Amino acid sequence: MAELPNPPVAVPDVAADLSKDDRKAVIEDLRLGLVNAQYRLKDANFPVLVLLGGRDRIGTEQVVDRLHEWMDGRYLDSWFATPRTEEERTRPGLWRFWRAMPPNGRTGLFAGGWIVLNIRALMRGDLGRSDYRRRVLHGNNLERLLVDDGVLLLKIWLDLPAEAMKKRLDKLHKNPAQARYAEELDWEIHETYDKATPLIERMLKDSSDVVPWQVIDGSDEKARDLAVARLIHEAMEWRLDAANGVVADAAPAAVREGDEHPIVDHLANVKLQKTIAYDKYKERLKKFQVKLHDLSLQMREQKLACVLAFEGWDAAGKGGVIRRVTQAISARDCKVFPIAAPTDEELARNYLWRFWRRLPRDGYMHIFDRSWYGRVLVERVEGFATESEWRRAYDEINDFESQLTEHGNLVLKFWLHIDPHEQLARFRAREQTHYKKYKITDEDYRNRERWEDYVHAVNEMVTRTDTKNAPWILVPANDKRYARIRVLKILCKQMEAALEGSLHG
Amino acid sequence: MAELPNPPVAVPDVAADLSKDDRKAVIEDLRLGLVNAQYRLKDANFPVLVLLGGRDRIGTEQVVDRLHEWMDGRYLDSWFATPRTEEERTRPGLWRFWRAMPPNGRTGLFAGGWIVLNIRALMRGDLGRSDYRRRVLHGNNLERLLVDDGVLLLKIWLDLPAEAMKKRLDKLHKNPAQARYAEELDWEIHETYDKATPLIERMLKDSSDVVPWQVIDGSDEKARDLAVARLIHEAMEWRLDAANGVVADAAPAAVREGDEHPIVDHLANVKLQKTIAYDKYKERLKKFQVKLHDLSLQMREQKLACVLAFEGWDAAGKGGVIRRVTQAISARDCKVFPIAAPTDEELARNYLWRFWRRLPRDGYMHIFDRSWYGRVLVERVEGFATESEWRRAYDEINDFESQLTEHGNLVLKFWLHIDPHEQLARFRAREQTHYKKYKITDEDYRNRERWEDYVHAVNEMVTRTDTKNAPWILVPANDKRYARIRVLKILCKQMEAALEGSLHG
Repeated sequence: MAELPNPPVAVPDVAADLSKDDRKAVIEDLRLGLVNAQYRLKDANFPVLVLLGGRDRIGTEQVVDRLHEWMDGRYLDSWFATPRTEEERTRPGLWRFWRAMPPNGRTGLFAGGWIVLNIRALMRGDLGRSDYRRRVLHGNNLERLLVDDGVLLLKIWLDLPAEAMKKRLDKLHKNPAQARYAEELDWEIHETYDKATPLIERMLKDSSDVVPWQVIDGSDEKARDLAVARLIHEAMEWRLDAANGVVADAAPAAVREGDEHPIVDHLANVKLQKTIAYDKYKERLKKFQVKLHDLSLQMREQKLACVLAFEGWDAAGKGGVIRRVTQAISARDCKVFPIAAPTDEELARNYLWRFWRRLPRDGYMHIFDRSWYGRVLVERVEGFATESEWRRAYDEINDFESQLTEHGNLVLKFWLHIDPHEQLARFRAREQTHYKKYKITDEDYRNRERWEDYVHAVNEMVTRTDTKNAPWILVPANDKRYARIRVLKILCKQMEAALEGSLHG
Repeated sequence: MAELPNPPVAVPDVAADLSKDDRKAVIEDLRLGLVNAQYRLKDANFPVLVLLGGRDRIGTEQVVDRLHEWMDGRYLDSWFATPRTEEERTRPGLWRFWRAMPPNGRTGLFAGGWIVLNIRALMRGDLGRSDYRRRVLHGNNLERLLVDDGVLLLKIWLDLPAEAMKKRLDKLHKNPAQARYAEELDWEIHETYDKATPLIERMLKDSSDVVPWQVIDGSDEKARDLAVARLIHEAMEWRLDAANGVVADAAPAAVREGDEHPIVDHLANVKLQKTIAYDKYKERLKKFQVKLHDLSLQMREQKLACVLAFEGWDAAGKGGVIRRVTQAISARDCKVFPIAAPTDEELARNYLWRFWRRLPRDGYMHIFDRSWYGRVLVERVEGFATESEWRRAYDEINDFESQLTEHGNLVLKFWLHIDPHEQLARFRAREQTHYKKYKITDEDYRNRERWEDYVHAVNEMVTRTDTKNAPWILVPANDKRYARIRVLKILCKQMEAALEGSLHG
């Protein structure tokens, strides 16, 4: 699926001079085609996502209503841009789009897509240049991710000459049955028409890197509705046929920037011989837990959220480390998410969706016991993800994490490292312990055979995703106590820095 | 599962005079026991839910932290009462508890359960007598539902003599590392201690109908933590053994009030011969859609939400009716949810959870194409639900709907009625229509054999769940057009009444 490009869409030619009867016949055909395509889509392993935006805000809403009339509303998920709710404001900007993401087999209509919503802020001077560029980047990256996943993504921009806009607003004003479509905002859009034009042109250009906007003139409402519906119908048919193997000219996965950077053997540099004496451990544990406790209160106070990912070899002691962290923090402020098999709702969407839906509100700490890095670890090594899937995951993950850090989250990733001898000793010991015996399965032994593959995957993962704002911390864990103190110490240091940054930033 | 009562819990006796070493050994045992029980629970088909409340608010938070230390935090879902978010305020009061409901196999700790949160409002005079009683009722009904589902529900109330409370607050004030636990609120609780006592006693009594509160004295913090942990551990062991068949004295399903009310043959009274002429249909359709459109704008304005459930025979024309409704309403304000097979996240919780999670925010209309009534229709007739499950569903559904209407939602339930001949004719016609052929499967024909069983189920459903505030509307649908006009007309009338009520209420 991942190799299928989006269709080479072109705005369908709509003969505006159709007779009334001909138009009726055309619409009947189109409706039948759209509904049939929706039924075919139900069994497909991808969703359709249509972003509708435009200077013609009223037209956008009318088009969505029209699509609901022509298509089967039971398989359409429409989302309308409204002022962000409190729960949305306390997460990164794209959270609400991820939240509304349609699962495989369904069609989503987003009235007002990611980047579209920035025009108004730009106009009003509420959005600086660098913030704008970051949002464009994240929007494009999201589109890249969706397209690579096989999502059929269409972007339709409805434009309207200033004259036509004025005429429509005047007309709406006189027709109470239609007046609902007009808002104060529409007059604002009309009054700032010329000022907005260069901004819109730039935005359309900036956000067409992955999926280009299809610009449709909305002057003739009937022709507009037909054009949008045809565009969607033709793309769906194309894509459904492509998925069935009718189109076979799939493009190979592109080579990504960074792929040629040499992989560093990070694990070889981890000083596994590090230990700590028991007395010193007890003393440090207490010291850092008291400190962590205090810092967690300050983080809550400052509304700074924290996202921690714990990865490591089986039996490396993740659970023990996590427990030492959570002991110091009120359960009110901190949640642990063990990541095992995804649910079917999760399987029907991008692998990052299950993490997006678990992002903390500002002021909270969420700890992931295994994480989104499963994509480039177990899924890579065991072959659950294709090569192109795990290769592109590095970029996807870097973009995901940078959205968190830009929103103000503290993001840290820990790899707990042990050697194979230590692991075997721990497996054996666990089998002797009543309570821990649940933790050891045949699979754990099988995974040991892949040790070298995992070493390679970890080294590549760290090489490609160790970033300044969301660093990897490789923790020597042959001595469990040493590992716990190390994690606590680094966590405290990073929280202090985050609080510092928030106070002075 | 449904037949298993909750354990006959008694507060475990905790010897306060344990030596330090003995206490340590006791705690070690308890931790091992708790974690083992959590592992056993993972494979069980029920969750554990612990409500913690108490005058000893600080103690409650400390106990949750302690449980997180002693148990495996990866399988604990803790929820803390905080001021309701915007998204929570725009739904019925219990929405946020349903949202946090643990799935089968996990343990949920709710710090501040449903009814507990009302004490403060009562104290401050913000909660009237009748509202308080309604909340008690809904809380008790929720507990009944959970217990009947097989949830292990424990309710622990931490109390503290006034003296001890004062002492603790003074002590916390002097210890910066513990100060986080104390809030302004705690002083308020202390200052109003005597005034609160009778209210608390009444609340504890009122809300012990289904699962009684276990009151624990929190004066001795160590003994308190041990008592709570033991209570949970013993109940889990008891319940896990019971689920394994060790305890076989399951109580039979109780006879419910109302079960003896005679079932009325409502369907026989539906005037199936009703028809409407085409011209009249066109004229009425337009009239009511214009009206509905206007009313939908007023509903949005007044922030009134609307929940519509459509049920009916296969091929009765639900889709066509729903389309006539949604055509008249902006897609922005209206969503349709087709109810097919539940996802695995839904299967791991009560059948109402999938509807709670889809409730509209104030001001929106959500239409369910098939609904929670599946429990007493297809699940009953096909044997997917046990007799005790579908029998108790009438009460559960009535309580669910009354929560919606009390929150201010307009709730309407439509049954589209046709006769078996008409159904057969429609099946045949669908098979001839390219677009509709997807709609007919062998199962549809099989269902016809159960016609009489369904008639009986529908009649009982209407008899038991036709309420003043959430009425059933039985719609003659042998003439599709008649059915559409009928639904539109009644919907308009009910929306007018709801708007009237909201303006004058």
